[in-house]
Amino acid sequence: MSKLYLVGIGPGSSDYLTKAAIECANSVDVLVGSQRALDLFPGFAGETLVLRARNMDEMMKKSISLVDEGRNVAILSTGDPGFSGVLKPILKLQEDLDLEVIPGISSLQLAAARLQLPWDEINLLTLHGKGNSQVILDYVDNGKPTMVLPDFRVEKLAQFLIDEGTNPERKVSVCERLSYPDERIVTGNLREIAYMEFSYLCVMVVY
Amino acid sequence: MSKLYLVGIGPGSSDYLTKAAIECANSVDVLVGSQRALDLFPGFAGETLVLRARNMDEMMKKSISLVDEGRNVAILSTGDPGFSGVLKPILKLQEDLDLEVIPGISSLQLAAARLQLPWDEINLLTLHGKGNSQVILDYVDNGKPTMVLPDFRVEKLAQFLIDEGTNPERKVSVCERLSYPDERIVTGNLREIAYMEFSYLCVMVVY
Ligand SMILES: C[S@@+](CC[C@H](N)C(=O)[O-])C[C@H]1O[C@@H](n2cnc3c(N)ncnc32)[C@H](O)[C@@H]1O
Ligand SMILES: C[S@@+](CC[C@H](N)C(=O)[O-])C[C@H]1O[C@@H](n2cnc3c(N)ncnc32)[C@H](O)[C@@H]1O
Repeated sequence: MSKLYLVGIGPGSSDYLTKAAIECANSVDVLVGSQRALDLFPGFAGETLVLRARNMDEMMKKSISLVDEGRNVAILSTGDPGFSGVLKPILKLQEDLDLEVIPGISSLQLAAARLQLPWDEINLLTLHGKGNSQVILDYVDNGKPTMVLPDFRVEKLAQFLIDEGTNPERKVSVCERLSYPDERIVTGNLREIAYMEFSYLCVMVVY
Repeated sequence: MSKLYLVGIGPGSSDYLTKAAIECANSVDVLVGSQRALDLFPGFAGETLVLRARNMDEMMKKSISLVDEGRNVAILSTGDPGFSGVLKPILKLQEDLDLEVIPGISSLQLAAARLQLPWDEINLLTLHGKGNSQVILDYVDNGKPTMVLPDFRVEKLAQFLIDEGTNPERKVSVCERLSYPDERIVTGNLREIAYMEFSYLCVMVVY
């Protein structure tokens, strides 16, 4: 029986790949992922399909139909496929699928590690696919730190929080491009973060 | 400068070790961990200290003092050190420590993967160190699934929930001994789980 594998590859660098992810990726017929994900498996000899922001839906459908045709397919997912990852959209597309999920180190875990912040009593939140940032307002004042994956620039999210009445002096950290050579960890207050510039790959913690 | 590393080793089998964890563990002078954790690094040539349930506190203090003496020490932590792991007690013992945390695949992530359950909109909860199970009652009726690490037998936790008024027909899953050859995933209702027998290593999901 052919299968669809959703493989967590960690936040980016090969340091956070697990043996399970490497073995699974190298065992399938077709590997589907962003170019930077595919680059983690230079020895892969099978067919590859490149995921781009614009062809996500098409590529997921294509992956499912390749499995129907009898091929083993792995979709490479940043971090963990189950946290704001490819698992939810795949389940929405087709429920009765021979599916296996291989967990990966989520960007939120590496953020927590870098900040030395236990994450068993904090709010964990993704804004991806939420349409707007309103939902973060349900969390930032419940007495626990909030770790959030923004779906747009983090400096805008900081400004949004200020505009919605959060104290501009509120302490926050931004973890940018985790695991890459240009990784950057910035701790400051909301006002400072709102005036800085960050790349798209950021995890933010509001303390 | 010598350092204390807290190294996440995943739920148990070597399949979930990351390259970062392997390289860190093999680079230190002293490796501290349960016997089953130490067994994951058979090639390690340095000194080892065996963690047992009863000597946790003593071994953590010993690890810190070894770092003070100039040795590099790694404490191996099941799953992720930041989720119900060794990070919190270490920070409590000493705050100004040269510390580095290496994240690992948490048992909750492998449970979510096995159950194909996205974990970005569920309650994540540990009962370890809580003294009693009361806190779970704050979560099980908030409309989201609850994933919990029990601190005693999971069948007792199921009975506790029934005794506290949760519907005995409520759907639950138990993920036992994840990643080990005798791994078992059971889905049923609370009443059924309360009558079964499980080992100590379990993650439970209340849907
Ligand atoms: C669609 S979500 C995928 C999350 C992924 N499944 C995970 O577990 O990390 C994309 C978001 O993850 C975060 N992210 C992913 N990789 C990152 C990295 N290397 N550094 C910082 N943030 C990262 C960013 O917040 C980004 O907007
Ligand atoms: C002190 S906590 C440590 C959690 C760990 N830091 C993690 O991230 O998985 C111990 C609990 O983790 C869970 N656990 C650890 N390893 C497991 C495994 N292989 N299978 C199922 N549950 C496991 C059990 O609920 C156990 O009671």
